Amino acid sequence: MAKKIPTRLYLSEDETPQYWYNIRADMAEKPDPILHPGTLQPASAADLEGVFCKEPVRQELDETTRLIKIPDGLQDFYRAYRPAPLIRAYFLEKELGTPAEIYYKHEGTNTSGSHKLNSAAAQAFYAQQEGLASLSTETGAGQWGSAMAMACAFYGLRLTVYMVKVSSEQKPYRKALIETYGAELIPSPSDTTEAGRKILAQDPSTGGSLGCAISEAIEKAVKTDKCRYVLGSVLNHVLLHQSIIGQEVKAAFDKYDIKPDIIIGCAGGGSNLGGLIAPFMGDKLNRASKTRIIAVEPASCPSFTRGQYAYDFGDTAKTTPLIRMYTLGNGFIPSANHAGGLRYHGMNPVLSKLYRDGFLEARAVVQTDVFDAAIRFAKAEGILPAPESSHAVKVAIDEALECKRSGEKKIILFGLTGTGYFDMTAYMAYNAKAMTDLIPTDTDLAKGFSSLPDIPQNRC
Amino acid sequence: MAKKIPTRLYLSEDETPQYWYNIRADMAEKPDPILHPGTLQPASAADLEGVFCKEPVRQELDETTRLIKIPDGLQDFYRAYRPAPLIRAYFLEKELGTPAEIYYKHEGTNTSGSHKLNSAAAQAFYAQQEGLASLSTETGAGQWGSAMAMACAFYGLRLTVYMVKVSSEQKPYRKALIETYGAELIPSPSDTTEAGRKILAQDPSTGGSLGCAISEAIEKAVKTDKCRYVLGSVLNHVLLHQSIIGQEVKAAFDKYDIKPDIIIGCAGGGSNLGGLIAPFMGDKLNRASKTRIIAVEPASCPSFTRGQYAYDFGDTAKTTPLIRMYTLGNGFIPSANHAGGLRYHGMNPVLSKLYRDGFLEARAVVQTDVFDAAIRFAKAEGILPAPESSHAVKVAIDEALECKRSGEKKIILFGLTGTGYFDMTAYMAYNAKAMTDLIPTDTDLAKGFSSLPDIPQNRC
Repeated sequence: MAKKIPTRLYLSEDETPQYWYNIRADMAEKPDPILHPGTLQPASAADLEGVFCKEPVRQELDETTRLIKIPDGLQDFYRAYRPAPLIRAYFLEKELGTPAEIYYKHEGTNTSGSHKLNSAAAQAFYAQQEGLASLSTETGAGQWGSAMAMACAFYGLRLTVYMVKVSSEQKPYRKALIETYGAELIPSPSDTTEAGRKILAQDPSTGGSLGCAISEAIEKAVKTDKCRYVLGSVLNHVLLHQSIIGQEVKAAFDKYDIKPDIIIGCAGGGSNLGGLIAPFMGDKLNRASKTRIIAVEPASCPSFTRGQYAYDFGDTAKTTPLIRMYTLGNGFIPSANHAGGLRYHGMNPVLSKLYRDGFLEARAVVQTDVFDAAIRFAKAEGILPAPESSHAVKVAIDEALECKRSGEKKIILFGLTGTGYFDMTAYMAYNAKAMTDLIPTDTDLAKGFSSLPDIPQNRC
Repeated sequence: MAKKIPTRLYLSEDETPQYWYNIRADMAEKPDPILHPGTLQPASAADLEGVFCKEPVRQELDETTRLIKIPDGLQDFYRAYRPAPLIRAYFLEKELGTPAEIYYKHEGTNTSGSHKLNSAAAQAFYAQQEGLASLSTETGAGQWGSAMAMACAFYGLRLTVYMVKVSSEQKPYRKALIETYGAELIPSPSDTTEAGRKILAQDPSTGGSLGCAISEAIEKAVKTDKCRYVLGSVLNHVLLHQSIIGQEVKAAFDKYDIKPDIIIGCAGGGSNLGGLIAPFMGDKLNRASKTRIIAVEPASCPSFTRGQYAYDFGDTAKTTPLIRMYTLGNGFIPSANHAGGLRYHGMNPVLSKLYRDGFLEARAVVQTDVFDAAIRFAKAEGILPAPESSHAVKVAIDEALECKRSGEKKIILFGLTGTGYFDMTAYMAYNAKAMTDLIPTDTDLAKGFSSLPDIPQNRC
């Protein structure tokens, strides 16, 4: 007989996963290598270590180790807020009248308000281990910046955060939170870096973008002694750290013998989606499951659904290594959609490859629909979701209603990446009916694509 | 051998308490009765039912039933966010270098951000059961208003919230949250009620107070068909609902054989403190423990430490029944301390009686010290506390440092009533060194006391 499923599927401290899961180990075809932008040859560890910490670089390049041990000094930190709740959405199911079973992994119970802390903690831990004094980074919605501020306060490191200007204006309380944890916050583009000054000279009124902010943060890291740069998404080591999300879900699902039919995650740079699906994608790649996996992105920044699969820079100033990914072009500046964390031109290369090879679906949704879904979810389940997370909520509700039409009892899992407590400006705009959907025209996209590097690898 | 204590002391759904704990049942000397303000006789259920729902009134007057069953329809709601985490503060202990063991009950993981949801859910549940269409209430810091908005959205009731004007201005995002959950929000004093208009006529520039807002909300309830008033603190039925906090702590402590030496809670109207200590106070009253219990209040609103034990009205317009409690006088208007939830002139009558009889200690602290402690806690434990909760944090740190001096390994428990995510204006003021301590002068207090009702019971 099937066990009764509680509202919250707990894992005790003993049952907590001890390993991250590296999806690449299970991929028959690996993603294309990251390239050095000068030589166009695969980037070496030495190339990357000028910018990033050593152990994350090793993880970035590791395509074969399936399970990687989570260090003890980091597990200490994880224990302060993990395991994150895995919740059966009984109330939402009832409200929708669906025969589907809906589960969500709630990553928003920590103060940073999102899953970002999982990799922030890991990267700060390694920086401390490697004897660094400070880190620099960028933040869009402010979730990554908050997470890094918390992690650096814990591990005793100084931190400079370049926050996308439009976000720092939309979210003064995010800024205050980051500063309360002791980090220096600089709205980007700024006049504190060459990259920032150059972007400001081109367009003094720009609201900024993650691409711009990344350029500034990298410049800060390479020009400062004992400082490295940390990134909150896109890269493979970030997805590896985030696999703690999927590992916890898998452990809890295994306890109750639950096998998801559909897994849904929002996708900006891909860190939450990649982490949530990691062990389930492993099963799928090994033909042990037929789980559908759906990436949800904003129609305003549709890298999967309208982007090109090409080598591109991670930043606007074209200073990073080249990554083969679905991209709108590093010059694409997305509109001021309220899901700041999904305003990024590119996508993690592993997820890009999996999408290219048909293991992953993608869907683009408009923000008014997303907020409709968010409020429906908030009233039923009691949790006010972040605008980013609400993209996954929207598609989970759509799939559950599809089950209602078809009568199928599917098992749906989605990632609730965070809470919307610092996103009330967005809810205020929605409540006041002052929110519009911001879909780029083909001309907007063509302008973005024109910024792709003209290299042999992009011509084939 | 003692069991290893995990960072989070879980209770499974099966271990969740099924009963609230009514402290009065264990009190040899009961608190003095609530009086009808006209007759000065003990208020009957009929007197109270014009304003409040029936079952809460029954609970309000019940001095003998020790354990009261939590209804199934309410347990459903509790399961969505309870049990609340009980956390061993390993990081804070290490940072302080104390031999003390520190535990805190974290009531801030739900969207309302505080313990207030425990009674909001109960009162909305009973209102729905009793066939009401709407409720009215007041809110100070906004936590109670948010909690009621969530509960009413869940149980399908309309809600009007009178929010203390200074709070609605300090906390625009709280206002947005309450409105997102579908409640009508009116800054108080307002011109929508006679009570509000009268207060505005006396002082058009007033920032309002909980006392004023209560008057407005009661007036709304009694003048609206199928509407009742709900209160978030002070009354005995609210403390009863909040006893779920202490019941969960007790169940978890019993699993690990932990007996607290000191229990610390912040006290505004007393709902969190009363709920947290309930079963432990029972043991103390029955001489089964010598646990010290400390109420912490702001020096700006010191009802225990500088108030009088007298019969007083719960509101400024003098419309409520009379309650014998520690009070600064219903006319006392506290300064705009950032802990809005602790800006109330009175104190729950059970806690007042226990303090009077020596079962409870009280301590007043100033807000700059409170924020020092808050940030120390936030950096160590990763959770940004609400200004109210930080009062308990401050005294917990003081007691742990006292253990460091004395070498004693005391076990300290405190209530972390909520998170500060909607209180960033307070943190911004602190970060900018623009925060002052707001201690009332003896003249301020005398003015408050002059508003106490001149009745025989207050003359003895």
